[in-house]
Amino acid sequence: MQTKRREPGSVGIVPHHDFTFAHPPHPFGLDSGRSLGPITVRYEAYGTLNPAKSNAILIVHALSGDAHAAGYRGARDKAPGWWDGMIGPGKAFDTERYFVLCSNVLGGCMGTTGPSSVNPDTGKPYGLSFPVVTIRDMVGVQNALREHLGIPSLLAVVGGSMGGMQALEWAVSFPDKVRSALVLASTARATAQAIAFNAVGRNAIMSDPSWRGGDYYGGEVPERGLAIARMVGHITYLSDESMRRKFGRRLRHREKYGFDFSDEFEVESYLQHQGIKFVERFDANSYLYITKAMDYFDLAAGYGSLEKALARATAKFLVISFTSDWLYPSYQSKELVYALMRDGKDASYVELDCPFGHDSFLLETERQTQIISSFLEGVGA
Amino acid sequence: MQTKRREPGSVGIVPHHDFTFAHPPHPFGLDSGRSLGPITVRYEAYGTLNPAKSNAILIVHALSGDAHAAGYRGARDKAPGWWDGMIGPGKAFDTERYFVLCSNVLGGCMGTTGPSSVNPDTGKPYGLSFPVVTIRDMVGVQNALREHLGIPSLLAVVGGSMGGMQALEWAVSFPDKVRSALVLASTARATAQAIAFNAVGRNAIMSDPSWRGGDYYGGEVPERGLAIARMVGHITYLSDESMRRKFGRRLRHREKYGFDFSDEFEVESYLQHQGIKFVERFDANSYLYITKAMDYFDLAAGYGSLEKALARATAKFLVISFTSDWLYPSYQSKELVYALMRDGKDASYVELDCPFGHDSFLLETERQTQIISSFLEGVGA
Repeated sequence: MQTKRREPGSVGIVPHHDFTFAHPPHPFGLDSGRSLGPITVRYEAYGTLNPAKSNAILIVHALSGDAHAAGYRGARDKAPGWWDGMIGPGKAFDTERYFVLCSNVLGGCMGTTGPSSVNPDTGKPYGLSFPVVTIRDMVGVQNALREHLGIPSLLAVVGGSMGGMQALEWAVSFPDKVRSALVLASTARATAQAIAFNAVGRNAIMSDPSWRGGDYYGGEVPERGLAIARMVGHITYLSDESMRRKFGRRLRHREKYGFDFSDEFEVESYLQHQGIKFVERFDANSYLYITKAMDYFDLAAGYGSLEKALARATAKFLVISFTSDWLYPSYQSKELVYALMRDGKDASYVELDCPFGHDSFLLETERQTQIISSFLEGVGA
Repeated sequence: MQTKRREPGSVGIVPHHDFTFAHPPHPFGLDSGRSLGPITVRYEAYGTLNPAKSNAILIVHALSGDAHAAGYRGARDKAPGWWDGMIGPGKAFDTERYFVLCSNVLGGCMGTTGPSSVNPDTGKPYGLSFPVVTIRDMVGVQNALREHLGIPSLLAVVGGSMGGMQALEWAVSFPDKVRSALVLASTARATAQAIAFNAVGRNAIMSDPSWRGGDYYGGEVPERGLAIARMVGHITYLSDESMRRKFGRRLRHREKYGFDFSDEFEVESYLQHQGIKFVERFDANSYLYITKAMDYFDLAAGYGSLEKALARATAKFLVISFTSDWLYPSYQSKELVYALMRDGKDASYVELDCPFGHDSFLLETERQTQIISSFLEGVGA
């Protein structure tokens, strides 16, 4: 059924919610064999859950994302949530039709329990005593949120980058709780190159003397290390072409080379700016934990093969990759789609020709909206 | 004239030589407007200069290279020079036919004057008082070495990566002193992405508290920062494919995840090892200076266009790029070759299908040997 496209709108000002579960003596069991509890989950919700509770879509975020995916947190907010172009009335995730949820991941630093949270046993932040978590652990916590909200099954789990890993994990770990999985600019396993970039970031953080083995809360934080981690990460989110278009060899505020070591190229000051902005909002230990979860991600592990892992899934799949994404290149999405097809699953795949690199899933609103709207129609509420 | 291929051999044990020039009051003028002197140049020579002095080939090295390109420095050396597969009797740069030279670049730390050298005016290492140098400055110093050796013109200047930048600069700045330029895995200008990776490396070094504004000689050196710079650099020298082949997702010395922040993936311990090895042999300030020279490199600058710059050249050109090199991708070599062709220059171009990424020019000996041997025959001694 085709509906008439409305003029897209905003979800407006949105409060966040906190849900706490896994209280001792019933903590949450982790992949590592350790357990954790209580766990607080920060989430936002846009739209209304229908009486049949069949129209819930879970948005899962990438490395540096949070629960604030759409709208504004207050009247003073300058910018809306990180995926506002996709979520709202008349948008791809149409809040007049769907109940859209987004929660901060386990191990994060934006409201959900993570290494910067206070350990109730000690009254101090966990720091490195926080257990190493996996993508499956993150998804298990999201499933607890689903239960808490009384949603029998999700219409869709949707994510780009590390969000795509979570969407895949949902389809395999909770096959009867998710009716579709939308996997954007992502992969079924972290490759050596992706692990290498994360390892550089972690090394930069752990080499910063302020890191102090992760025990820096209340004191000086490892700003320089985290900024460097963000800088190297940021290069992998763009593309050679988008960087040439955006910066080229332009100098900042000067005509000639300065013959010194200041950030004189525009691309240098851009990266510095990204690093500094990131340090203001993100916790260095969370960066360690979340990148580790990404590195550990290998959907096939424990099942013998990608085909065997995906054989468990009952969801419909939509896989989107981007030609200029060199962090999770299209061939990785194609491997995933081949495995789904060999399993006889209902899978759609689109490769979008887009110059913005890995970040394309955040920037390419128009074509993604067309594809995703149609796909969700097919899943039905 | 086709010569019969001999069994390739080694140049054996090779001494280095030091040549010092630009003694005050006649220092060497730099692109920055500053001047420097005296300058010592460390070089090695293989083979014999013919009576006509027409068979000299200058090898120019990349960021982390040095004058020791072939053979052994002593009987205890475990590994030969960095391009030993290409230089020696019967090899691409056949030392039975050619007089092959390689010198450490200006700003380096392997014998040629650089920031770790003692400033004769103060009796202390230059550190950051060393002037920022350019690729053209490096080439100017090499030209002084050519004059010192009484070589009217070089049969060839040959380099990969930053070496290719120098070969191009030779052809444009000293057109009557070089009869051919071999430009491998290189570019006529540093792009935003290449600058960005270098900027991350410099930031890592300058963020290391041991760096102390470059004034660390005689004390603790910025090991962690330099190691991180090397790690990120190293990723750009490999390729996604070569990393998958070489490391995949294999763990080191364990079967299962450790759920900690040690270097458990093989690719992580490989990068750590590369970082540590590099710190033992390289100076952090030289890393700053040499990467800055690369970032500044734009052959067209000062001429109006690449075509106008290359119009000055009289050399024959051989340009080789590699399909998997994403640091200086083939399109950059092609832009260079198009400009040469529009200028009506004698230019050959080969793109080699090779999985080793940017490092291919160091590893792909066999096919490069065939191509280069034939090309040098065409130039003639």
